[in-house]
Amino acid sequence: MDFKFELLKKDRSSNARLGRFYTRHGVVNTPVFMPVGTVATVKAMTPHEVKDLGAEIILGNTYHLMLRPGHKIIRELGGLHKFMAWGGSILTDSGGFQVFSLGDLRKITEDGVYFQSHIDGAKHTLTPESAIEIQEALGSDIMMILDECTPYPATFDYAKSSMERTLRWGKRCREHQLRQEGTVSELRAEGRRFGTVPGSEGGQALFGIVQGSMFKELREVSARETVNIGFDGYALGGLSVGESKEEMHEMIEVSAPHLPEERPRYLMGVGLPEDLIEGVRRGIDMFDCVIPTRNARNGMLFTSSGAIQIKHSRYISDPSPIDPECGCYTCRNFSRAYLRHLYMAKEILSSRLNTIHNLYYYLNLMKGVRAALEEERFERFYKEFYSDRIAAEIHED
Amino acid sequence: MDFKFELLKKDRSSNARLGRFYTRHGVVNTPVFMPVGTVATVKAMTPHEVKDLGAEIILGNTYHLMLRPGHKIIRELGGLHKFMAWGGSILTDSGGFQVFSLGDLRKITEDGVYFQSHIDGAKHTLTPESAIEIQEALGSDIMMILDECTPYPATFDYAKSSMERTLRWGKRCREHQLRQEGTVSELRAEGRRFGTVPGSEGGQALFGIVQGSMFKELREVSARETVNIGFDGYALGGLSVGESKEEMHEMIEVSAPHLPEERPRYLMGVGLPEDLIEGVRRGIDMFDCVIPTRNARNGMLFTSSGAIQIKHSRYISDPSPIDPECGCYTCRNFSRAYLRHLYMAKEILSSRLNTIHNLYYYLNLMKGVRAALEEERFERFYKEFYSDRIAAEIHED
Repeated sequence: MDFKFELLKKDRSSNARLGRFYTRHGVVNTPVFMPVGTVATVKAMTPHEVKDLGAEIILGNTYHLMLRPGHKIIRELGGLHKFMAWGGSILTDSGGFQVFSLGDLRKITEDGVYFQSHIDGAKHTLTPESAIEIQEALGSDIMMILDECTPYPATFDYAKSSMERTLRWGKRCREHQLRQEGTVSELRAEGRRFGTVPGSEGGQALFGIVQGSMFKELREVSARETVNIGFDGYALGGLSVGESKEEMHEMIEVSAPHLPEERPRYLMGVGLPEDLIEGVRRGIDMFDCVIPTRNARNGMLFTSSGAIQIKHSRYISDPSPIDPECGCYTCRNFSRAYLRHLYMAKEILSSRLNTIHNLYYYLNLMKGVRAALEEERFERFYKEFYSDRIAAEIHED
Repeated sequence: MDFKFELLKKDRSSNARLGRFYTRHGVVNTPVFMPVGTVATVKAMTPHEVKDLGAEIILGNTYHLMLRPGHKIIRELGGLHKFMAWGGSILTDSGGFQVFSLGDLRKITEDGVYFQSHIDGAKHTLTPESAIEIQEALGSDIMMILDECTPYPATFDYAKSSMERTLRWGKRCREHQLRQEGTVSELRAEGRRFGTVPGSEGGQALFGIVQGSMFKELREVSARETVNIGFDGYALGGLSVGESKEEMHEMIEVSAPHLPEERPRYLMGVGLPEDLIEGVRRGIDMFDCVIPTRNARNGMLFTSSGAIQIKHSRYISDPSPIDPECGCYTCRNFSRAYLRHLYMAKEILSSRLNTIHNLYYYLNLMKGVRAALEEERFERFYKEFYSDRIAAEIHED
C-alpha cells in the first residue's frame, strides 16, 4: 500500500498534533520517536526487543549501509527489513549528513558529493539520483532527499546558496523517484516483477527537507519551495547543530506554518526529552536521535526526574532501580548497584540494560504524549513533565 | 535444602552416568554444561536468556567478584543470585586459578596466597579460610576449595608438593566450612538469623579438587585423599592446561575409579564439544568453559558439522542460517550474511547473537547426551557425534 498520513486531533492550546501514518510495514502512531539503527541494528538490541519496547519505526543510515555491507548485498538478501529481521517500518536518511561531515574526505559539486569511505578510503559518489536508488535497494518505507545539512554557524550567503542547492537536489530526487516508479509500472504492465525487494516495486514515500540555517526568511522560502515540489512528508534539517534552544524553537515556528497540515513533519536528529516535548508543542510529528542509545552506552540514564550517571560512586551499593516508577525490563530486575558494576566492568550487558531503559523512557514518553493529545490534556502533561524535574532538582543532594 | 546428588542411570558400554543434583535453587540435570558468568554476568546475555536456553546452573568467578564489586557489597545486596537476578544454581570457584595466573603479582605461602589486584594493584590475601568466607558471602550453591592448579608441564616433585598442599588446603576449607556451619547452627538455636543471604545460613555444598598434574600415581593419591577428607562433590583440576587429549583422558580415567559413585564429578575448565563428550564417556557429570561464550565474541560458531568463522568472506551474501538444523533464536531469524556484517561492523548484537547460538549448541548437546543416556543409546549418540563431523569434512570445499 502507498504511504498515507492521517491527522487525528489538534491540541487547542498549542500546535501539537495527534496522527498516524501507514507504510507497507504497518501503522505508525504520531508523535513518534524513531530509534536509530545505523548499520542495520539498533545498537545492543535485537529487532524483537525494539518491537517489544513499542517502536513502530526505526531509522537506518544510508551512508553506513552503502559502504558496509553495501546496498546491493542488502537488496540481494531481500531488503533491509528482511536482512535485519525487522518487521516494522524503516526510514532511511539520504547519506548526505554523514558524507558532509567527512571534511577533507569529500568534495561537493552541483552534481553531487564525491567522497572516500571512512572504513577503507574507497572512492564513492552520492548524487540525488543515486541516493534514491540506494534507498530503493535498501527498500525503506520512507526515503529522504539528498540535502546539505548547512554547517552552523553559516553566513547568510552560504546558508542561502546551500538551501537553494538542497531545493534543486530535492527536485532531482523527486523526479528520479517518479521516473523509477514509472519504470516499475511499465515493467509491471508487462507482467514482470521489478527487482527482488518490496522497495523496488514502488510504494516508498519520499520526504523533502527544509534548510536555511538560523535565518527566518531562508527557512520560509525553503519550506514554501519544498512544498511546491511536493513530497509525502516534510523534514526540518540543519537543527540541533550547536544553536541555542531558542533559535531551534524559532526555526520550527517559522517553518511549520508553511507545511501542509495533511503531511507528517519530521525534526531530524532531535534530541533530548525536552526537545521532543517542545517539538511536539510546535507541531512536529516525528523525531530521531542517537541520544538514548549512545548515552546509554556511556552510562547516562533518563528518568522522569532527570538524567543520572550510573558510574557515580553514590550508586555502589544502591539496591533501588534506576527509576522506581519505570516499568522497563531493566528497572523490574536490576539495581543501580548492579548496573554500576556492569558499567565499571565494561560488560556488554551494561550497554544492553542501559539501552533498554533509555529507549523505554523515550518511547514511553511519546506514548504519554499521544495519550495526552488523545484525551485532550496535553497542556497539563507538558507542565507536569517540567514540574517533575523541578521537584527532583530541589530534592537533589 | 541441603545439596543432594542422585545417580539415575549408568551406561553399559562406557562410564557415562545420568544423574541430577539438588541445590537451594533447584534441580540440575547431569551431565551438565555450566556457562561461565565471570563478573556476575554470562557475557552479552541477560540471566533470563541464559535460563531460556536451558541452563540450570552457571559459574561465577570468586577472584573477579571479590575485587569488583566486592563480595561484601554483593552480600549486602542479598547475595549473587539476587544481585544478578539469576534464579538458578551457581557454582563459584575459589579464586585460586586466577590468582595463580597473576605471575609476579602473587606470592604463595603455606598460609595462602598474597596478591595484587589486576585492576588497581591493591593488595589482597586469599587463604583456604577466606576463600570459604568469600564464597559464603556470595551465597553460591556450590563452593570450591582453594587449590593450586599445577602449571603444565611440572616436574614430579613440584606436582607432588603442589598436590599435597592442595590436600592440606582442602582440609582447611572443609574444616572452616564446618566451623562456620556450626556457628550458624548455634545462632539459629538462639533464634537469630546469621547474615543476610541464604548462603550464610548453611546449605552450600563444597567440592574438593583432585590435582597431580599428568602423573598417574599422584592423581590416584590425590583422588583417594581428597575423598578421605569428604566433600559433596569432586572436581578434576589442572587439566586442559596444554597437555595432549590422550594425557587428559588418561588422567580422568585414573582418577574416576577412586571417586565415590554417589557424588558428582566435575571436570574444571573443559572444553570443546568433543572434550565434553569424551569426559561424559569417562564418568564426568559437570563441565564449565569460556569457549562457547568467548569464541562467540571472536566470531567462531559451533555447528553439528564443526565450527565456522563467521568473518570469512564466503559468507558475505550467504542467506542461510549458521546451522540449518539449529533451533536457536539466532538461526531462526538471521542469515550468515547478517551475522558476518554485524561481526565486521563490531556491533554488540554480533556478540549477542553469536553467544546465543554457541550456548544453545553446548546446552543442546548436553541435553542430547542426557536423552541418549536416558534412552540407553549413548554409544550410538557418541558415534553419530563424530560421524556428522567427518561427513562435513569430506564435503568441505
